[in-house]
Amino acid sequence: MTQLENLNQYFTENRERHLDEMKAFLAIPSISSLSEHKDDMYKAANHLSDLLTAAGMENATIHDTAGHPVVTADWLHAEGAPTVLVYGHYDVQPVDPVELWDSMPFEPEIRDNIMYARGSSDDKGQVFMHVKVLEAMLASDEKLPVNVKVIFEGEEEIGSVHLDQFIADHKDYLKADVVLISDTSLYAPGKPAVVYSLRGLTGIQIDVRTAKGDLHSGMYGGGVHNSIHVLADILASFHDENGHIAVEGFYDNVLPISDDERAAYAELGFDAEQMKEEAGVKTLFGEEGFSYLEQTWARPTLEINGVFGGFSGEGVKTVLPAQAGAKITCRLVPNQDPHEIVALLRAHVAKHQPEGVDIEITEFDKGKPFIAPFDHPYVQAAGHSYETQYDQKTAFIRSGGSIPIVSTFDEILAAPVIMMGFALSTENFHAPNEHFHLENFDKGLRVVSDYLTEIASIEKI
Amino acid sequence: MTQLENLNQYFTENRERHLDEMKAFLAIPSISSLSEHKDDMYKAANHLSDLLTAAGMENATIHDTAGHPVVTADWLHAEGAPTVLVYGHYDVQPVDPVELWDSMPFEPEIRDNIMYARGSSDDKGQVFMHVKVLEAMLASDEKLPVNVKVIFEGEEEIGSVHLDQFIADHKDYLKADVVLISDTSLYAPGKPAVVYSLRGLTGIQIDVRTAKGDLHSGMYGGGVHNSIHVLADILASFHDENGHIAVEGFYDNVLPISDDERAAYAELGFDAEQMKEEAGVKTLFGEEGFSYLEQTWARPTLEINGVFGGFSGEGVKTVLPAQAGAKITCRLVPNQDPHEIVALLRAHVAKHQPEGVDIEITEFDKGKPFIAPFDHPYVQAAGHSYETQYDQKTAFIRSGGSIPIVSTFDEILAAPVIMMGFALSTENFHAPNEHFHLENFDKGLRVVSDYLTEIASIEKI
Repeated sequence: MTQLENLNQYFTENRERHLDEMKAFLAIPSISSLSEHKDDMYKAANHLSDLLTAAGMENATIHDTAGHPVVTADWLHAEGAPTVLVYGHYDVQPVDPVELWDSMPFEPEIRDNIMYARGSSDDKGQVFMHVKVLEAMLASDEKLPVNVKVIFEGEEEIGSVHLDQFIADHKDYLKADVVLISDTSLYAPGKPAVVYSLRGLTGIQIDVRTAKGDLHSGMYGGGVHNSIHVLADILASFHDENGHIAVEGFYDNVLPISDDERAAYAELGFDAEQMKEEAGVKTLFGEEGFSYLEQTWARPTLEINGVFGGFSGEGVKTVLPAQAGAKITCRLVPNQDPHEIVALLRAHVAKHQPEGVDIEITEFDKGKPFIAPFDHPYVQAAGHSYETQYDQKTAFIRSGGSIPIVSTFDEILAAPVIMMGFALSTENFHAPNEHFHLENFDKGLRVVSDYLTEIASIEKI
Repeated sequence: MTQLENLNQYFTENRERHLDEMKAFLAIPSISSLSEHKDDMYKAANHLSDLLTAAGMENATIHDTAGHPVVTADWLHAEGAPTVLVYGHYDVQPVDPVELWDSMPFEPEIRDNIMYARGSSDDKGQVFMHVKVLEAMLASDEKLPVNVKVIFEGEEEIGSVHLDQFIADHKDYLKADVVLISDTSLYAPGKPAVVYSLRGLTGIQIDVRTAKGDLHSGMYGGGVHNSIHVLADILASFHDENGHIAVEGFYDNVLPISDDERAAYAELGFDAEQMKEEAGVKTLFGEEGFSYLEQTWARPTLEINGVFGGFSGEGVKTVLPAQAGAKITCRLVPNQDPHEIVALLRAHVAKHQPEGVDIEITEFDKGKPFIAPFDHPYVQAAGHSYETQYDQKTAFIRSGGSIPIVSTFDEILAAPVIMMGFALSTENFHAPNEHFHLENFDKGLRVVSDYLTEIASIEKI
C-alpha cells in the first residue's frame, strides 16, 4: 500500500470515532460574541488543544489574549521540507432564533450523512478535519511529510480583534512557507475551488456644508449653494457612464487580470439569470469590458453606501439644506494600497469642491487586498489535490469580499495563503440548521493529506 | 384746499381716535391656527365689519366658510371709474413664547411712536389703515374717487385654506380692475417698494430602486446597480457647471427680465456682504449671467430639498443600497406652468433612467408664478403715490417666495395685483414684540389716498 492508501484505510477504519469526536467538539457552545460563553471559549480551546496533543502534535499551547484565547501547536521534524501554517477558528455565531432549528444547535446530529450543528461547516468541522489529517499521518507513518504549525483563533466571528497583534508578536514562531485555510466553500456541489485572492477595503465619509443653517428656498433659492447639489456633483463624478471609476490614478496599481485567469473564469459557466434571481435585480451592470466575475472578483469598486441631507420626512419642505453627506467604500484589488486610494479620493473631492463650500473627509478602516500568485506551485498543487477526490476540475477563484486577517498573514509572514474550503455556500453559515455534508469531510481528509504530501516534494521558494 | 390736503388734515385731526381704534382691533386675539380662538375670529370679523360700515362702506358682510369667516364690503358709486379690490387678513400668528414679549401681545401699547401688538404690522394694522383711508375720503368728500370692494380673510396664516374656493364662488362680485394688497414691507426704512411679481412652486419626489433588498458590497459590488449612484447621476444632471438648469425645455416659457427691470434692480444697491452675513454663507452662487437679485427674484430654480438612501448611522456599513430618493422643488417664474414643468422633470428623469432600474415619481402641490406688467399704469402709479410721502424713489421689486392666493386673484379675476406694503422686514412678524412704525401708518394713509385718487384718472384697460 502507498502512504496515501494507508491513510485512506485509517480514515475509513476510524470514521465512527472521528464523527463522535467531532460531535463532542461541536457540542461546546463557543459563541464568541456573547460574554456568557466566555468559559465555553476556554473549554473549546482546551478541547482543541487536547485533540492536537492526542493527534501527536507538539507544544499545544493556549495563549491568553485581551479577548478569547488562541491555540497553537506544531510538529517541526521534517527537516528541509516546507513549513505549512494551518489557520482556522473555533468560535461560532450565535444561534437565534433557536426555534427555527430542527435539532438543537449544540446537540450535533447526523441525518442523511449530513452533520447538523452550529459550527459544523463554519469552521469547527473544517478545523477538526485538519486535526484528523495530522492524527492519521502521525499514526500511520509516525511523521508528517512537511513541518506543520497550527493557529486556531476564537474571535473570527467578531472581526479577529486581537489576532493581528498576536501574529505580529509571534511572527518568528509562525514563520511558514505557505498558509493553509479551510474556511471557504466549494464553487458548487462536487466542484472544488481554491480562493487565491480577496478584495481589500477602504472608505471615507464626505460631509458638505454650504451655510450656517438651512435656508428658505424662496428667499435664497438660486443665489446660494445647496449642499446636496454640491454633494450630488461629487458623487456623480466618481464614475463615468461606462461604470469606470473616474478618480485620477485609481487604477494605476491594479494588477491586470491575466489571460489564464480570464479563461479560467469564463470556463466556470457563470449563470447570469441565476445571479439576477439571487440578487433580486433586473439587470447586471458593471465596468465595461469585464465579465461579471471579473467585475466582482478582480476589479476595484467605489460604492456609495449611504447618502443623507435636508428633509426626508413625508411631503415637501422648501428648504435649502446647509449640510449633506455620503459614506463611500472601495473594494480594492491587488496591488492597490488603501492609504494611497484614500489620498486619491481626497484629491478628487478637493478638485470638485466649489469655492466657499466646506467639505470634511472622515477616513474609515483600511484592509489590504490579497492575492496569491495564480501560478505559484503551492496554489496549483491545491488544485491537483482537490482533483484526486472530486470528479471536476478545480476552480481557481477570487472572492469579492474582504478577510483582513488573510492580508495580515500574507504581509507579516510573507507566505502565500491558500484557501481550500470544503463547505457549501448553501450550508446555512450564521443561520439556523447550519450543516456540513460529511461526504466533503471524508474527501477533505484525503485532499488535505494529498496536499501535504504533494507540497513536500515542491522545492522551497 | 385740495382734496388731498383735506384728507391730510382729517388724518391729523383724527389721529388719536384712529390709534385708539387700532388698539381695540389689535386687542382681539384672532389667532387662526388655534381652535380655542374660533370665537375671537368671529369677534374680529364683526369688529372689522362694523369699522367698514362706520367708515361709510356698504354691504359689509361676514361670510361663513368651512374655516374662519371672510369679510367683504363695497362702495360702487364712482361710475365709469376703475374698481379696486382691497385684500388683507385679520388673522394673526400665535404669540408663544409669550414671556419674550415686553408688553402683552393683545394689550397694544405705543412706545416711541411704534405700535407693539401681535398683528400690528402683519396684517391687521395695514388692514385698519385701508379702512381709515376709506373713512377719511367718505367723510370729507362723501364719495370715493374709484369703486372699492374689500375682502379680508381670516386664514392667511394657515395657508388661505378656503379662499381659493371663495374667490371662485364670488368671482362676479369680486370683479375688479386692480387688486391692492398691503401685506409686504418697504425695501428698507424710508425706501418704499412695490412687489409686482412672485415665484411659483412645484416639485417631485424621485424614488430609485435597483434591487429587492440591500446587497453585500463584497459579493455583488461592481456587478449590479447601486441606487445611490443612479440617483446621484440624475441629481447632478439637473444643473450644468454654471448653475443653469439642464432640463430640456425648462426655460422655454421664462419671461426675460426687461432692461428696465435689470436697471431698476441694479439701482437698489444690493449689498452682497450683508446678504452673505444674513444667510451664513461664504460665497453667493447662482446662474451665470444674472445678478443675485435677478437670480432670486426673476429666475427659476430647481433645488434638491432632501436626499436619502442606504446607511446613514455612525461608522461604516458595506451595503449596496437597493433604494434611494430625493425631494425636489422648483421656484417658477412667469410664464412657466407648474404642470408643464413637472412633465419636463419626468421626461428628464426618464432620459437618465438606466435599463432595469425602477424609478417612481411623486408630484407635489403646484402654485403658479405671478407677475403684474412692470409698465402697467396701475403698477407705475403705486410708485408715484409712494413718492409723494417718502423721500426715496420707489423700488419695483419681485419676491423670490410664493403666495399662491396672489396667483388666484390674478387668474380668476384677471386683474393686476399691486403689493404696496408699509411694514418693515425688521418688525418681528410671527415673532415676539411684533410692532408697526406709526410713521409708516401715517404715510400709508396718505399714500393709499393718493393712489386711489391717481388711478381714478387712469383710463380703464
